[in-house]
Amino acid sequence: MDFVSKYKGQIDAALEKFFTDKIEGKSGIEKEAISKLREFTMRGGKRIRPLFMILGYWLNSDVDDRIVKASISLELMQSYLLIHDDIIDQSEIRRGGPSFHRMFGYEGRINEGISIVCADLSDAYSHEALLDVDFPPDRLNSAMKLMSEIVEFTGIGQLMDITLSLGDEMTVDDVTAIHKYKTAQYTVNGPMKMGAILSGYRDPNRIDRFGLPLGIAFQIQDDILGMFGDEKELGKSVVSDFEEGKKTHLILYTYQMASRAEIDFIRERLGRKGISREDFERVRNIIEKCGALDKTRELLKKYYDEAISSISDLSPSPSHRDQLKYMADLMVRRTK
Amino acid sequence: MDFVSKYKGQIDAALEKFFTDKIEGKSGIEKEAISKLREFTMRGGKRIRPLFMILGYWLNSDVDDRIVKASISLELMQSYLLIHDDIIDQSEIRRGGPSFHRMFGYEGRINEGISIVCADLSDAYSHEALLDVDFPPDRLNSAMKLMSEIVEFTGIGQLMDITLSLGDEMTVDDVTAIHKYKTAQYTVNGPMKMGAILSGYRDPNRIDRFGLPLGIAFQIQDDILGMFGDEKELGKSVVSDFEEGKKTHLILYTYQMASRAEIDFIRERLGRKGISREDFERVRNIIEKCGALDKTRELLKKYYDEAISSISDLSPSPSHRDQLKYMADLMVRRTK
Repeated sequence: MDFVSKYKGQIDAALEKFFTDKIEGKSGIEKEAISKLREFTMRGGKRIRPLFMILGYWLNSDVDDRIVKASISLELMQSYLLIHDDIIDQSEIRRGGPSFHRMFGYEGRINEGISIVCADLSDAYSHEALLDVDFPPDRLNSAMKLMSEIVEFTGIGQLMDITLSLGDEMTVDDVTAIHKYKTAQYTVNGPMKMGAILSGYRDPNRIDRFGLPLGIAFQIQDDILGMFGDEKELGKSVVSDFEEGKKTHLILYTYQMASRAEIDFIRERLGRKGISREDFERVRNIIEKCGALDKTRELLKKYYDEAISSISDLSPSPSHRDQLKYMADLMVRRTK
Repeated sequence: MDFVSKYKGQIDAALEKFFTDKIEGKSGIEKEAISKLREFTMRGGKRIRPLFMILGYWLNSDVDDRIVKASISLELMQSYLLIHDDIIDQSEIRRGGPSFHRMFGYEGRINEGISIVCADLSDAYSHEALLDVDFPPDRLNSAMKLMSEIVEFTGIGQLMDITLSLGDEMTVDDVTAIHKYKTAQYTVNGPMKMGAILSGYRDPNRIDRFGLPLGIAFQIQDDILGMFGDEKELGKSVVSDFEEGKKTHLILYTYQMASRAEIDFIRERLGRKGISREDFERVRNIIEKCGALDKTRELLKKYYDEAISSISDLSPSPSHRDQLKYMADLMVRRTK
């Protein structure tokens, strides 16, 4: 059985249990905060980060209850960061439902204030979930330190994203750097290394050569789906990335490859709300026709190949290698 | 020499060193973020939390460089929480200078977005600062777990504060509960217990009987200074608590003890910006005249006495007892 089918249910169950234990005996706003965090966290579905943590652990140790319990720390961290992100971007939709700060019925700024704090709670929960599990203390410390570094990297990526998006000078290299900081560490590499550390894997840094390129490939696929994916499968509108003004490889390659008039057409609309279906169709057409979509797919393949080529260094076991390949494929072939 | 004179300089130096190391080799927005965090963190002055952490450590162990280095984690946590607080409350002034989100020159919401993320960075730094110090791993784990619980408690207190302040039904007991969650754990009790844990002190929970009441007394003194203190010493306006609509013991006792007309006078002005000096003078007069100020001071004394009476349980050493008493006195007699 593949990794996802085998462990996704266990991760969800461990998350449910965490929230059930947390909510017990609570009342008032604390209870409301925890229930809303539960609803928000359970609504998301892929559990990619916990899965990569379990995968990293499995490279050196049989999967047990402990690593499943520890892995939910990454979903709690994910909720923390997503809630802040959505306030910053003023996003209204997340995971096919309202963004967290739209789940409260107070006035706008109060909802945001409460949500900033609820996110901070989820951050504290993520540490508790990790530190409560019965691993050797030195491994727990290293894993906890790495988790903080992941948050740090993600924050730097987020700051680069916010400030570089303001100007017109963002380059393809900037976008790749942001992907590396914001996604590659956070989604694939960091979680896998945390799992490896908890298992006592001898050289966790070796994972960088798999996790970093795969993480970048994951984000590029995300950007492609964010403009060309199926809205029903994604659970979000495909115009939202564009309306938020996200400067992806797709956009920056188009700026290099399309005609002056086409570039102007996109520039005038990128980052503005309320684009018409026809105009958005034309934007997608330009990106496709000028070759930017193909070029982005080639870049994705380059990173994917880089990750695949490192697999043989990570483990001598054929079944490990198969699952690493399976997870890599899943990241770049997913449709949601 | 007393604790404050002895260690405040060392704490500041360790903080400076942390930021100097962090900023080295950085550029762009990352460098800007770290410098602004440094400026903001160094501007604050009392270092109460690190001092209580060192005090808790000293109960069982000589003070060394390690505990001073670990103690700065609490100032980094403090910056994290203050930055979020000021965004939530839309406060413009902090520690005698602009609040963090007023330190950037972008447009308003961008400044807030950047600041949310910079605060999250400071949170990550606080873990790194603690986990990087060479203590036995099991003690580090317990201290880290407690630090997360402190953030959790503070968050719950903050949520209670935000939501209960919206209605008119906040009671004296609510305010005490908020003080307990938001300040007592966070400012006195949690830091002291973290220090005790790092020193291997046998029964850290014993500290609750000192740290919790002293923390509440600290917050009550804060509320008194926030309306009756000296603006120059405080580095902030004495009308700001009132304009923010803070429901303190001072206000709630006044609602119990003043005349109908006086209560209406306060109710109509609490939580509104732009109160005139004359009106604010009248508010203070009402609070003083009706006996609410005295009653608040009595409550402060009750908690202070409770803390003092527990001192003999914490350590048999006279010099320990002297410093505990000294720190307790400082918390409730301070003028800033």
